[in-house]
Amino acid sequence: MKKHNFSAGPSILPQEVFEKSAQAVLDFNNSGLSILEISHRSKDFVAVMEEARATALELLGLEGKGYKALFLTGGASMEFVRVPYNLLKENGKAAYLDTGTWASGAIKEAKRFGTTEVIASSKDENYNYIPKGFAVPADADYLHCTSNNTIFGTQMHSFPETNVPLVCDMSSDIFSRELDFSKFGIIYAGAQKNMGPAGTTLVVVKEDILGNTGRNIPGILDYSQHIAKDSMYNTPAVFPVYTSLLTLQWVKRNGGVTAIEKKNNEKAELLYNEIDRNPLFTGTAKTEDRSKMNVTFLLKDEAYTEQFDKLWKEANISGINGHRSVGGYRASIYNAMPLESVKVLVDVMQEFERTV
Amino acid sequence: MKKHNFSAGPSILPQEVFEKSAQAVLDFNNSGLSILEISHRSKDFVAVMEEARATALELLGLEGKGYKALFLTGGASMEFVRVPYNLLKENGKAAYLDTGTWASGAIKEAKRFGTTEVIASSKDENYNYIPKGFAVPADADYLHCTSNNTIFGTQMHSFPETNVPLVCDMSSDIFSRELDFSKFGIIYAGAQKNMGPAGTTLVVVKEDILGNTGRNIPGILDYSQHIAKDSMYNTPAVFPVYTSLLTLQWVKRNGGVTAIEKKNNEKAELLYNEIDRNPLFTGTAKTEDRSKMNVTFLLKDEAYTEQFDKLWKEANISGINGHRSVGGYRASIYNAMPLESVKVLVDVMQEFERTV
Repeated sequence: MKKHNFSAGPSILPQEVFEKSAQAVLDFNNSGLSILEISHRSKDFVAVMEEARATALELLGLEGKGYKALFLTGGASMEFVRVPYNLLKENGKAAYLDTGTWASGAIKEAKRFGTTEVIASSKDENYNYIPKGFAVPADADYLHCTSNNTIFGTQMHSFPETNVPLVCDMSSDIFSRELDFSKFGIIYAGAQKNMGPAGTTLVVVKEDILGNTGRNIPGILDYSQHIAKDSMYNTPAVFPVYTSLLTLQWVKRNGGVTAIEKKNNEKAELLYNEIDRNPLFTGTAKTEDRSKMNVTFLLKDEAYTEQFDKLWKEANISGINGHRSVGGYRASIYNAMPLESVKVLVDVMQEFERTV
Repeated sequence: MKKHNFSAGPSILPQEVFEKSAQAVLDFNNSGLSILEISHRSKDFVAVMEEARATALELLGLEGKGYKALFLTGGASMEFVRVPYNLLKENGKAAYLDTGTWASGAIKEAKRFGTTEVIASSKDENYNYIPKGFAVPADADYLHCTSNNTIFGTQMHSFPETNVPLVCDMSSDIFSRELDFSKFGIIYAGAQKNMGPAGTTLVVVKEDILGNTGRNIPGILDYSQHIAKDSMYNTPAVFPVYTSLLTLQWVKRNGGVTAIEKKNNEKAELLYNEIDRNPLFTGTAKTEDRSKMNVTFLLKDEAYTEQFDKLWKEANISGINGHRSVGGYRASIYNAMPLESVKVLVDVMQEFERTV
């Protein structure tokens, strides 16, 4: 029996994506070959890569606006390195927002490359809010932010207005909501939350911000080289890219980001309403900064932990244990999570209220 | 109908690996979850990673000898960067053997980091042989070589005796033959030839050669950090690692590297004998340096190309077109290629001889 999978990542994908990608492992496009054994230079896979790149730009409303989409490898952690290599000038300055563990990780890597100014941080309250009212230095080479903080359950609901290139790690909320994506210079996202399985990273780059650092960039870390090779600088992660394409096609068929956002709002509202209503629970993130992807909450009385855990396990729920930095629970309700599964969780919370 | 897949990479894997991995995409270990949606921190996946790491060392005979196996991302091209970052001292010197396109790619990246001496090259004859009789500078921080040159069909059948750490790109012949692997400081291999699908890279590191460069190494490029995190520095490529494990288990069950090597010798002998016997064909690599993985050959008279191509296509063969740098044909006969498929190709070559 299929579980209600609230895992923070790798995480749930549409059931039809699992079925189509399993079929492709046995026989891809009736080619008599598995998708795992075909050349990445084969006509069929080049078509997959090109459609994945085009669909990503289309879903973000970025076609014809000077952007290129790349499917790279290494996860967001590799982009923590590629971003300063490609944007931070020798003797330049980078600006970073510190909104959680992953934002801090990005800052740590940038510091190896040069002056890195943390212009605002919510570390003082264990990252339970998004800093506001900060100034962006006009002389920064770029500003880096993290749109959604998977661990702490916070999300940026607005972005700084600035003239410096805005770089955003959208690993955990890419394709989940409408934004004016043309405000960003670079958007990157590890696939394994809202886009596909672990093993590929979507990087969307505005071409005209590249080429200004004066650095000697290793080939595989150089966005320009990946762009020049149409995202085939070396062998891409064939199966993760294919499965990501299947997910992007699913988003598109289901009304694109606009329709997905509406469903995501409905799911988040249902769950947060229950957390706020139910006297046994409390949310961990400041209300105005709550994430619509990762809903973090605590039992007001930890003594009930065993009882609550028993109930949700019986309901065939998995993956809602909180991250050790926050404790409690974290229900990740990414694009592919059906409203029905959220209802099951809410029912369990209500059942729990009735029985303790 | 299943094809005879001679693709140079990504390439053929055992049929049972395709079947088991397709099943895991639908339901992994009867967990009610797809392998694509499970947390990489879940007990089941941690077990996969640990078994993959241990089996890799076991098959190479390196258990208990100070080595760690890692499953990283980025392909061999990323190791072209990680190797100098981790081994080339500031103001130190690296030594490289130039035996083909990929070796040259590695050299190009090392040069960004410091003095890089190409101690021998076969570029003068379009890389159709392996240089011999060169001296390894005793003051080099390491010597880098490429054990098998996929494009040019050559393979190192012996390795230099040296006291400097020996680093080897074994992407296209890992697990294909017995060697004294303890002679190497670092062995790395993109999965997509002999080990699994594209998307993960095996790196085997002798721990005691690390930590001497004085460089400020980005986290994800630092072998020591990957070792400290048991190859989970960040989210690994879950599905490619799982499928690699299935292939490693298959190698082990079939007698390990010793037994695989025997079969590989048989396949290579069959095909090279036909190339040498058949008056219509000629091999491209010097006989003593021929690869047992990638068999490169030409039609003596290119006018027959269309006729020969028609024949092998009718025999359900795919992937034997040569790389543009060499032309002609390249039959890649990796571990998973059955002898029967090689026989089909040899039959086609003989049929071709009878009919022209």
